[in-house]
Amino acid sequence: MKYTSDNIFHMLNNFFNPKSIAVIGASRTPGKVGYDILKNIIQYGFQGAVYPINPSATEILEKKSYPSLLDVPGKIDLAVVVVPSKNVLEVIEQCGAKKIDSAIIITAGFKESGIEGAKLENELIKKAQELGVRFIGPNCLGMIDTHSKINASFAAGMPAKGSIGFFSQSGALCLAVLDRALPDEIGFSKFISMGNKADITDTDIMLALSEDENTKVILGYIEGVSDGRKFMEVASQVSKKKPLIILKSGITSAGAKAASSHTGALAGREAAFDSAFKQSGVIRAHTINELFNYALAFANQPLPQGPNVAIITNSGGPGILAADACDKSDLQLIPLYKDIVDELRSFLPPVASFYNPIDILGDSSADRYERALNTVLKDERINGLMVLLTPTAVVDVEATALAVANISHLIDRPILTSFMGKKSVESGTKILMKYGVPNYSFPEEMVSSLNAMYRYHLWINRPEKHYPRFNGLKEKAVQIFDTVKKENRDRLYELEVHYVLHAYGFNQPKSLFARTSEEAVAAAKGIGYPVVMKIISPQIIHKSDIGGVKVNLNSKKDVENAFFDITTHVRNIMPTAHIYGVMIQEMIPKGKEVIMGITKDLQFGHMIMFGLGGIYVEVLKDVSFRIVPLGQEDAHEMIRETKTFPLLRGVRGEAEADIEAIEKSLLILSQMAMDFPQIIETDINPLMVRQRGEGAVAIDARFTIGGE
Amino acid sequence: MKYTSDNIFHMLNNFFNPKSIAVIGASRTPGKVGYDILKNIIQYGFQGAVYPINPSATEILEKKSYPSLLDVPGKIDLAVVVVPSKNVLEVIEQCGAKKIDSAIIITAGFKESGIEGAKLENELIKKAQELGVRFIGPNCLGMIDTHSKINASFAAGMPAKGSIGFFSQSGALCLAVLDRALPDEIGFSKFISMGNKADITDTDIMLALSEDENTKVILGYIEGVSDGRKFMEVASQVSKKKPLIILKSGITSAGAKAASSHTGALAGREAAFDSAFKQSGVIRAHTINELFNYALAFANQPLPQGPNVAIITNSGGPGILAADACDKSDLQLIPLYKDIVDELRSFLPPVASFYNPIDILGDSSADRYERALNTVLKDERINGLMVLLTPTAVVDVEATALAVANISHLIDRPILTSFMGKKSVESGTKILMKYGVPNYSFPEEMVSSLNAMYRYHLWINRPEKHYPRFNGLKEKAVQIFDTVKKENRDRLYELEVHYVLHAYGFNQPKSLFARTSEEAVAAAKGIGYPVVMKIISPQIIHKSDIGGVKVNLNSKKDVENAFFDITTHVRNIMPTAHIYGVMIQEMIPKGKEVIMGITKDLQFGHMIMFGLGGIYVEVLKDVSFRIVPLGQEDAHEMIRETKTFPLLRGVRGEAEADIEAIEKSLLILSQMAMDFPQIIETDINPLMVRQRGEGAVAIDARFTIGGE
Repeated sequence: MKYTSDNIFHMLNNFFNPKSIAVIGASRTPGKVGYDILKNIIQYGFQGAVYPINPSATEILEKKSYPSLLDVPGKIDLAVVVVPSKNVLEVIEQCGAKKIDSAIIITAGFKESGIEGAKLENELIKKAQELGVRFIGPNCLGMIDTHSKINASFAAGMPAKGSIGFFSQSGALCLAVLDRALPDEIGFSKFISMGNKADITDTDIMLALSEDENTKVILGYIEGVSDGRKFMEVASQVSKKKPLIILKSGITSAGAKAASSHTGALAGREAAFDSAFKQSGVIRAHTINELFNYALAFANQPLPQGPNVAIITNSGGPGILAADACDKSDLQLIPLYKDIVDELRSFLPPVASFYNPIDILGDSSADRYERALNTVLKDERINGLMVLLTPTAVVDVEATALAVANISHLIDRPILTSFMGKKSVESGTKILMKYGVPNYSFPEEMVSSLNAMYRYHLWINRPEKHYPRFNGLKEKAVQIFDTVKKENRDRLYELEVHYVLHAYGFNQPKSLFARTSEEAVAAAKGIGYPVVMKIISPQIIHKSDIGGVKVNLNSKKDVENAFFDITTHVRNIMPTAHIYGVMIQEMIPKGKEVIMGITKDLQFGHMIMFGLGGIYVEVLKDVSFRIVPLGQEDAHEMIRETKTFPLLRGVRGEAEADIEAIEKSLLILSQMAMDFPQIIETDINPLMVRQRGEGAVAIDARFTIGGE
Repeated sequence: MKYTSDNIFHMLNNFFNPKSIAVIGASRTPGKVGYDILKNIIQYGFQGAVYPINPSATEILEKKSYPSLLDVPGKIDLAVVVVPSKNVLEVIEQCGAKKIDSAIIITAGFKESGIEGAKLENELIKKAQELGVRFIGPNCLGMIDTHSKINASFAAGMPAKGSIGFFSQSGALCLAVLDRALPDEIGFSKFISMGNKADITDTDIMLALSEDENTKVILGYIEGVSDGRKFMEVASQVSKKKPLIILKSGITSAGAKAASSHTGALAGREAAFDSAFKQSGVIRAHTINELFNYALAFANQPLPQGPNVAIITNSGGPGILAADACDKSDLQLIPLYKDIVDELRSFLPPVASFYNPIDILGDSSADRYERALNTVLKDERINGLMVLLTPTAVVDVEATALAVANISHLIDRPILTSFMGKKSVESGTKILMKYGVPNYSFPEEMVSSLNAMYRYHLWINRPEKHYPRFNGLKEKAVQIFDTVKKENRDRLYELEVHYVLHAYGFNQPKSLFARTSEEAVAAAKGIGYPVVMKIISPQIIHKSDIGGVKVNLNSKKDVENAFFDITTHVRNIMPTAHIYGVMIQEMIPKGKEVIMGITKDLQFGHMIMFGLGGIYVEVLKDVSFRIVPLGQEDAHEMIRETKTFPLLRGVRGEAEADIEAIEKSLLILSQMAMDFPQIIETDINPLMVRQRGEGAVAIDARFTIGGE
């Protein structure tokens, strides 16, 4: 693995554990960023040396100030840069001279502001690389580390110490998240505003956080990634170690438009990000609220070891809402063992509900909650517990919260709660949060958070993926691609397509080329009737659209007529097309038509697509994607992900299609994409899939080629 | 219209505007329900007479107490009943004697508690009807009216005066909603806990609230309805007048199980409720959070008159999140007119984003917000505005909130905001809420709320639905259904199906019945080759599953062979089946196969189903439903709602199918369902649809019949 997290963590040590910090551009004026940051560094308890740098001040906030970095006598570990953008390069030079290897560049006015800014940013990157200065930003809010008590940001406030590590491409989102976290004392370990990500990127931070012992959960907000491959590699590595929850915006066309005018990020395509997240174990949050909800669950509770959950509630309605939400999730509300139900009956009122959700009624005391919880937990099949409370007149919210918190500390199964309401339950939810039981305002949020944990449990326990390699295929096709490159074409000719597919082991219809009607008849005889005839011309791509294909030719006469029809017709409507002749092909008996292909995403590179062919792909757009390389499991899953998959299994007594042949074909396509990076697009459409064990035949295919 | 809202409003007047209230079962012990209710009535400012009824007290909470209702000297308008369940009937009798026509029965222990309770509830209903006492409950929390200052509930607190009317089947949900509303001072007009809905139902309350001038928005939580038809009729009527937002739980199998053990409600089927809500203009909330979010928008802002919206933000990230959410909604982020953009350019920094979302940057002052808003509003195509704010260091949250609130008061277009975060924005959001600008913690919630408003705008502006009636069809089929009833059958025979479809004007394949091979040949000749042969036996429903159907018979010999094959085969595998003979049918050329049918829902009665036939319905379950009677518009929409609809329009150069013929068939099925309430299930499968203008042919159909 190229990206070693401990190296990066070590490399970023001066950001998270500096012994001394200089603020270049420190200001004496409250309200100015250069003042706020300095003040934050001092007021939130940083223990090391702090050096304000200001050309005209001698002291700021009771710290001795220096005209330039170079005037500071001692060693400086971290430079926080707030000077105007035109002066940033000079400061970086000084950092080099002063052997400072870590900087946070708060200053805006770079890539996000237009062409001039982008130029400046490139110079900054170059200069910093030359001098060995790593930096966060530019155009960011700064960075917070609650454990080493550094608040090198201009945010108003310092989050509570905790185990959530957060990085964000949007500084505004940092502010909003921080502001929301503060009153509830939701604890963070690190808080990093990434800005333009000109040097230190999401992947660096993800790796560092995965190594950081104070961080249990990694949270991120991104609008795009610069290197999709690297992102996936790092995310896969990190997600095996810690939950990695990401909110990605700019997913839709409207969103993407906004994204391209913000931080200059190129928004990735939805399918690519979806696949990338799926393949690398990223837990995707769809709203800021979800990001928060998931983080609270992961930060505080152990993972459920299975899907079975129980709900205990003091009111029916919310219980039903929670059950509805379970039904839409992967969680399962199983009925409890009979002896557990019997025990519940021994102390609950007879009109309670002993099914799951277990309704212990509105007059429940904390004691009844406690007994019910302890009883239900005796059922060892229950992997997780959810506790609902509505503020009835008799319920003792605080005592119940304490009871739940106590039980939670004694078990290794997750407990999540939804004490509903606000004012009446506040004292209880504070207790719950304090003791690490995440509470949600609404039962639906509680359920979806536990579900995210269960899905993560599945992810970290899934077996290592198996990436088959197919050797010796590439060699036979290299020459074709070389020729195409030499001739500067962007498409493969019919015969080249045939040859490449052949090289990669795809079955194809028997085919013979014919230049005349007589040759066509001879070819048809050789192949055996019925046959298909297709026009061959370098100018004609969509043959059937212009009447260049005839099927089901059963006799000499059919072939002669077809030859005449096709050539005359094509000559009439495309007089300039150069007609080489026709291809006579074996007529393949109808099987299941599927489509598979390769496309290339700007950020993530090659992706493999799969779907049922014809109207299913055209009308229903029922396709699935994976990013190359495909593991055996990816091929397996992506076929089953389509809604039309049951058709391959066979409906109405049909035989099952050869699904294994499809899987293998997808894996081979993945290999092909790796072998030939110049492929921009490939469609095999249709691949005619026969019955189980009988393989598949590639009837038609297209290749579009670009530079490497 | 049977249900006149003003009558009901008037009838419920003593609930909402009583001049005197008696609390039967009033208690001297704080914490007891009989104490809490009395205290709530007194402490929240009820101006009329209050009579505690308690057999042993002389005074409670400084009010003179009476041993029985009958001892009270004055007139009593409203009785609040908190005595044990065994005494409730007696109290109702006293109400009758005392000419009290309105009661709230708080007491539990009725239907929700089992068989004995259900019996008691039936007696209660009977008794109350005899004596002319209308009641809310039993098993409820009570009722609140903020305008007449009545809090006849045992909830802890009184909501602020406002325009949201709320009714709930779950008392617990009432508590949770109330508790959440209190600190934010979200205003309610009425707050009604419905309990078991034994007398006064959801529809009564919906009608009353639609008439109540203090109520602008009606909110409801239901788990099931007793009379689906009435619900739809009332909801349609009410939703034309005021937004009616309902959270319905128990939608899934797990949820439904919980529902049947709560309040004894029978959970309606999801498809039925979905259709019912759609057809009667109910705005469906899917979570409690949505219920709140929508209510705030509708209660405070005017409806958008179109889909075009603009977003103004001081930060890119949240702007993108909002744009993403718009893209998933019916709202449209249109680019502004050039002169508007030019005007924005004249005062915004050059690196601002002038596209929509309009990013006015993190250093925005309240003044810049104000100018931007006013400028954007000059574009009259903008039907609604959304304002995002993240708490940057420089933003003046309060001044910005005031500016937005001021503008909101001057225009008749909706403004919604998302001032994100918590602590830093709190003072601003309080201002916004106070001046009626709904604020949302997250941009996604803001967008979905505005979208709900836009969809409601579409609903109230849609033209009156047109319900075609097809007369004279029923008469021809009455005899068939009479015979089936006489013979106590639950199925129509083949020939009866044929006759009924004929009566309702469905085209069918030419068919002739044949008992012998010779008759079959003669029939085939008469119809014209090719033909289809089907076994006719009252014991055989799924003919093709047992080899009872042969298609594409092209000659005398084919027919003879088929007759022999079918009869021998069927005799072999079903020796007890009584074989009448075979049906010889015209072979209909392939068209688009669709399926349509009638099913009967417990609560809502007959529903019409539509989908593309074969694998589309079997594998993809791509069907749509509407409740009978269907309007022309319903038939139109339900066809277009299916994902496979484009196949009817024609793909790959196919001709369009006769969609009008499908529409008419659906309407005729709806008529049939109304004509024959005894129909439990009908499938026409397949209906072979020809090209546009050429109609459709019902190839096969089934009818299942029950009691009326």
